[in-house]
Amino acid sequence: MQSAIRIALAQLNYKIGDFESNKNKIIGEIEKAEKAGADLVVFSELAICGYPPLDMLTREAFVTEAIQAIHDIARHCTHIAAVVGGPSINPGSKGKLLFNSAWLLSEGSAKPVVHKTLLPTYDVFDEYRYFQPNQTFDIINFKGKRMAITICEDIWDDRPVEQTFDRNHLYTLSPMQKLAALRPDMVINIAASPFSYHQHEIRKQVVCKKAAQYGLPIYYVNQTGANTELIFDGGSMVIDAQGNVSHRMPFFSEGLYIAKSDNFEISQQHEPDLKGHSLETSLIYDALVMGVRDYFHKSGLKKAVLGLSGGLDSALTAAIAADALGAENVQGILMPSQYSSDHSVADAQQLAENLNIGFDIIPIRDIFTQYNDALSSTFAGCTPDITEENIQARIRGTLLMAYSNKFGHILLNTSNKSEAAVGYGTLYGDMNGGLSVLGDVYKTEAFRLARYVNRDREIIPHNTIVKPPSAELRPDQKDTDSLPEYDLLDAILFRYIELNQSHSQIIEAGFDETTVVKTIRMVNRNEHKRFQAPPILRISGKAFGFGRRMPLVASYKP
Amino acid sequence: MQSAIRIALAQLNYKIGDFESNKNKIIGEIEKAEKAGADLVVFSELAICGYPPLDMLTREAFVTEAIQAIHDIARHCTHIAAVVGGPSINPGSKGKLLFNSAWLLSEGSAKPVVHKTLLPTYDVFDEYRYFQPNQTFDIINFKGKRMAITICEDIWDDRPVEQTFDRNHLYTLSPMQKLAALRPDMVINIAASPFSYHQHEIRKQVVCKKAAQYGLPIYYVNQTGANTELIFDGGSMVIDAQGNVSHRMPFFSEGLYIAKSDNFEISQQHEPDLKGHSLETSLIYDALVMGVRDYFHKSGLKKAVLGLSGGLDSALTAAIAADALGAENVQGILMPSQYSSDHSVADAQQLAENLNIGFDIIPIRDIFTQYNDALSSTFAGCTPDITEENIQARIRGTLLMAYSNKFGHILLNTSNKSEAAVGYGTLYGDMNGGLSVLGDVYKTEAFRLARYVNRDREIIPHNTIVKPPSAELRPDQKDTDSLPEYDLLDAILFRYIELNQSHSQIIEAGFDETTVVKTIRMVNRNEHKRFQAPPILRISGKAFGFGRRMPLVASYKP
Repeated sequence: MQSAIRIALAQLNYKIGDFESNKNKIIGEIEKAEKAGADLVVFSELAICGYPPLDMLTREAFVTEAIQAIHDIARHCTHIAAVVGGPSINPGSKGKLLFNSAWLLSEGSAKPVVHKTLLPTYDVFDEYRYFQPNQTFDIINFKGKRMAITICEDIWDDRPVEQTFDRNHLYTLSPMQKLAALRPDMVINIAASPFSYHQHEIRKQVVCKKAAQYGLPIYYVNQTGANTELIFDGGSMVIDAQGNVSHRMPFFSEGLYIAKSDNFEISQQHEPDLKGHSLETSLIYDALVMGVRDYFHKSGLKKAVLGLSGGLDSALTAAIAADALGAENVQGILMPSQYSSDHSVADAQQLAENLNIGFDIIPIRDIFTQYNDALSSTFAGCTPDITEENIQARIRGTLLMAYSNKFGHILLNTSNKSEAAVGYGTLYGDMNGGLSVLGDVYKTEAFRLARYVNRDREIIPHNTIVKPPSAELRPDQKDTDSLPEYDLLDAILFRYIELNQSHSQIIEAGFDETTVVKTIRMVNRNEHKRFQAPPILRISGKAFGFGRRMPLVASYKP
Repeated sequence: MQSAIRIALAQLNYKIGDFESNKNKIIGEIEKAEKAGADLVVFSELAICGYPPLDMLTREAFVTEAIQAIHDIARHCTHIAAVVGGPSINPGSKGKLLFNSAWLLSEGSAKPVVHKTLLPTYDVFDEYRYFQPNQTFDIINFKGKRMAITICEDIWDDRPVEQTFDRNHLYTLSPMQKLAALRPDMVINIAASPFSYHQHEIRKQVVCKKAAQYGLPIYYVNQTGANTELIFDGGSMVIDAQGNVSHRMPFFSEGLYIAKSDNFEISQQHEPDLKGHSLETSLIYDALVMGVRDYFHKSGLKKAVLGLSGGLDSALTAAIAADALGAENVQGILMPSQYSSDHSVADAQQLAENLNIGFDIIPIRDIFTQYNDALSSTFAGCTPDITEENIQARIRGTLLMAYSNKFGHILLNTSNKSEAAVGYGTLYGDMNGGLSVLGDVYKTEAFRLARYVNRDREIIPHNTIVKPPSAELRPDQKDTDSLPEYDLLDAILFRYIELNQSHSQIIEAGFDETTVVKTIRMVNRNEHKRFQAPPILRISGKAFGFGRRMPLVASYKP
C-alpha cells in the first residue's frame, strides 16, 4: 500500500564543530516538521558538524561528539523520521577510517544507512583526504516508499565542465545508475554545495537532468551560511520525475519546506525586483554580505575596521560590511598622505556619512618622514622607487592593525581579484586583514556591485565610481600606469584563472600577445604574495586560496 | 637465460616545471650510467616535472611538455633502458584525466608501463586530486628479469602509524601482494618521499620489511632537494631479498649508484662524526640548509636579509642562511628600541662578526614615537597594552621589507614552531618573511641546533644560548611571562600537534590540566595568524601549513 508521504526539507546554517548548537537547531526543525505533519525531515550533508570540517575530522573527540550528537537527536525521532548528514566509522579494517554518511533517525535510534560514493577531491574539496568511498548500493524502505539516498557529488558523475583540460566523468562509478536499477520511488540528495555565481544554475540543470533521465523525483537539500571562505547559498529544491523544479527554497537564508510525494505542482516563485541589475550581481552581493556576517558572528566578533581611500574597493567593502554587521559596528579610517588628492578624503568622508559609519582621520606624512630619516644612511645614494610606495602602504596597514588591536575591531581587507591576481598590492600593507571581502571579485564586477549598492540612493559617491582608479602612492599615479585597462585585464585573467586557458588559447581568442604574456607573468610571479593573503570569500568557480594550489618555487612559462 | 643485470639508481634534485633542466639532468645521468655499464637506470617519482607539481598538473601545456620531455629523453635510451617517473594521460573515458606513471624508456621510445595504485591523500599529499588510481597489475620483462615496478606509496599499504585516530591500512588493495603473486625477480620503487626527522628510519623499516616479507630485492630511488616547504632527503637504497640494506645513498645530495642484481654485499657506510650531537639534529640542520638554498637558487634569488635581535632564533636562522647562501649573501639588521637590552645589540653584533655577514643598525625609537603621536587622539584615554608591542614588531617588519624592496634581498622569517603554535608573534611584524626557516622547529630543538652549529667553534654567542628568551617589547619582558617553560610547552604541543592527542590523553599522560587547556586554547585561537604565515620548511611529521588544514571559523574545544 503506497500512500503519499510528506517530506520536509530543512535548509540550515551550521557552525563547524558546534555540536550543541547544530543539534538544537536540528531538533527544533524536527519538532516543527512533526507539528506540520511531515513523515520525514531531511538535513544536508555533514549537517551535524557543518561543512567543511577539514582536519577536525582527524580528531577522535570531534568525530565521537558528532556521532553522539546524532544519537541524541534520534531520541526526538519517535513520530517522525529524519535523514541527517554526518561522519560514521568505517567498520572495515582497511581503507580510510571514516565514511561521509546519511544517517537515518527513526523510532528513537540512528543508523548510518548510506555512505557517499563520489568524493570530490578537486578545487576546494578534499573529501578523499578523510573518507572511504562507498561501493555498495541499497534502497531504504520507508512507509511503503523506496528511497534512493545520495550524498551531494553522488549525482554529479557527469559534470558540466567549462575548464580547459578537465573532463565530465571524474569517476568510474555512477551511483544513480546503480540505484535506479533497484527501482526506487524517489531520490533524496543531501548536499553541501558552495555558492559561485554560476553554480545555482548549473546545480539546477544537473539535478533536473538526473530526475528526467531516470524518471524519478529528487528532493535536494543544501546547507546555507558561510564558513570562512565558502559561502553556501541553499536553494534546496524539489524536482518532479519529468525534471521540472516544483519548488525552490530561497537563497542565503534558513527555512523548512514541506513537500508531498504525490504532488509536484509548480510553486509560484517570488521574483525580486532587481531594478535593471543582473541576478548574478545581486547574488554575489548577498553572498558577500552573508560571508562577512557569518565570519564575524560565528567567531563571536562584532566590529570591523577598514581603511577608506576614497576609492571604489574600500567603499564597496564598507557598504557590504555595514549591511552585514550594522553601520554602528563598522569603523572607517582615512589615512591621507602627501600624494592623496583632495577628493579622496572628501569622497571617503562622504561615503562614511552616507553609510552612517564611524570614521577617523590619521595622516601618515610624519611617520613616513620618520621612516625615510631612519633609513637615510642605509639607503644613501638610492633613488625613491617602489620601496617608498610600499612603506606608505605598510604604515597604513600598521595603523589599521593598531586600531584593531586596541579596540578589538577586525580589519577587513579591501583588495579585489584583479589586484590579487597581478600582485598590485603591498604585502603587510594594504594586503592586511582578517578577511578579504573582494578577493574573488574582479574590478569590473566591483563596479557593477557598486552600482547595485546605489540602486535605491547614492551610497557610494558618484565620484568614487567614475574617477580613474589610483593607489595614490606617488604624484598623479593611475592604475593604468602599471596595468592594462581593467576590462581587458579582467577578460585575460578570467580566461587564465577561471577557464584555465593557456596563453596561446587566449591569444588565439584575439587578445594582444604582449598584454597576455605580461599579464600571465604577473599572475605567476605573485604566487608568494597570495600565499600570505587573508582568506578570500569565494564567489567564482576558481578563487585564489585553498582551491588553487600552485607551487611557489617553480618554473612558470612564459 | 637469467644473467645478472646492472641497475643504476639516479638520485637527483629536480626543479618543478623546468623541463629543459630536468631533461638534461636525466640525460646526463643516463649517459653516465651507460658508460659505467648499467643496463637500466632508475629515476624517481614524477622526476620529469619534480615533486610536488600541485595544480600545475591541471594545465594542459604543463602535462604536454612533461610527456614530450620524456619522449625526448627516450631517444638517448638505445643501449640502455631507463625508468622515469612522469604523468601520463588516462586513456579511459571515465576517472581522473591523469595517471602518476613509471615510464619505461628503451630502444629509443617511451611508454607509461605502470601507474600508481595507492595515492596518498593526507597530510601534505593530495594525489587523488590529480590522478586516477591504478587497479591492474603486470610484470615488466627486461633482459630476462621479471621486474615489479611500484611507485612510492604502493609499498606502503601497511603504514607504521604513530598518531591517535589513524590507521595502518588506508587502502583496500595491496599492490605488493598482487605483484608478488606474479613471481617477479625484483621490485623497483620510484619515490618522492619527503624528509621528516623520523622518516629516514621509518622508510628503511617499511622497505626492508616488504623485501623480507616477499623475499624480493628492492631498488628504491628517492628524489633529493627542496621544493618550497618540502625537503627531500634522498637516501635511495638497495635492499636484498632478506630485507638487509645492501647500499644506501647519501642524504641531501645528488648521486648515481650502480647495483648488480646478483650481488648484495653490504657496502660500508661512512658514518659522520657528530661530536656528541644526535643524528636527528644533524639531519634537521642539513635539511634546513638545503631548504633555504633551494628556495633561493631555484627561484633565481641570491641574497637574504633578516632581523637580528640578539636572540636564539634569529642567530640560528642567520647561521643556516650563511651556510646555505654564503655569508656574503646574508645581511642582518639590528633594530633596537628603548626596551632592547645592551647585550642584545652586542650579542647580535658578535654573531654577525662570527658569521662574517653584513649588518646594519636602524633604531626604531623615533618611528615608534611618531606612531604614538599619530594615534594619540584616536587612542586618547587608553593605556598602553599589546597594541604598542605590536607596533614595534610591525615597524621592524616594515624596515626589513623596505631593505628587501630596495636591494632585492629576500626576508627570512625567524619564528620557531613553539611561537607559531601559540601565536606568540606579530602578524605583519616578526611573522613577515618569504620563507620560515624554523617554523617547524620547536624552541627546544632550536637550542640543540644552536649547539650543533657551535660544534667546532663558537658561532652563535654563548650568551645568546644561555640567556632567558625574551621578545623585548616592554621593560624586563620574558617569554615565560606569557608562556609555560619551553620544555613543558613543547612536550604538550608535540602531543597535540604531531601525535594528535586530545587534552584528556595529554592530561592522563601526567601534564598539568590548566597548562594543557591554556596551551591548546592558544593553538586553536591562532589558526588565523598561521593562515597568513610564510611557507614553512617541513622537518617533522606534522608541520603547520598545507599539511594541517584547520578551519578558521569553528568551535574548538576547549
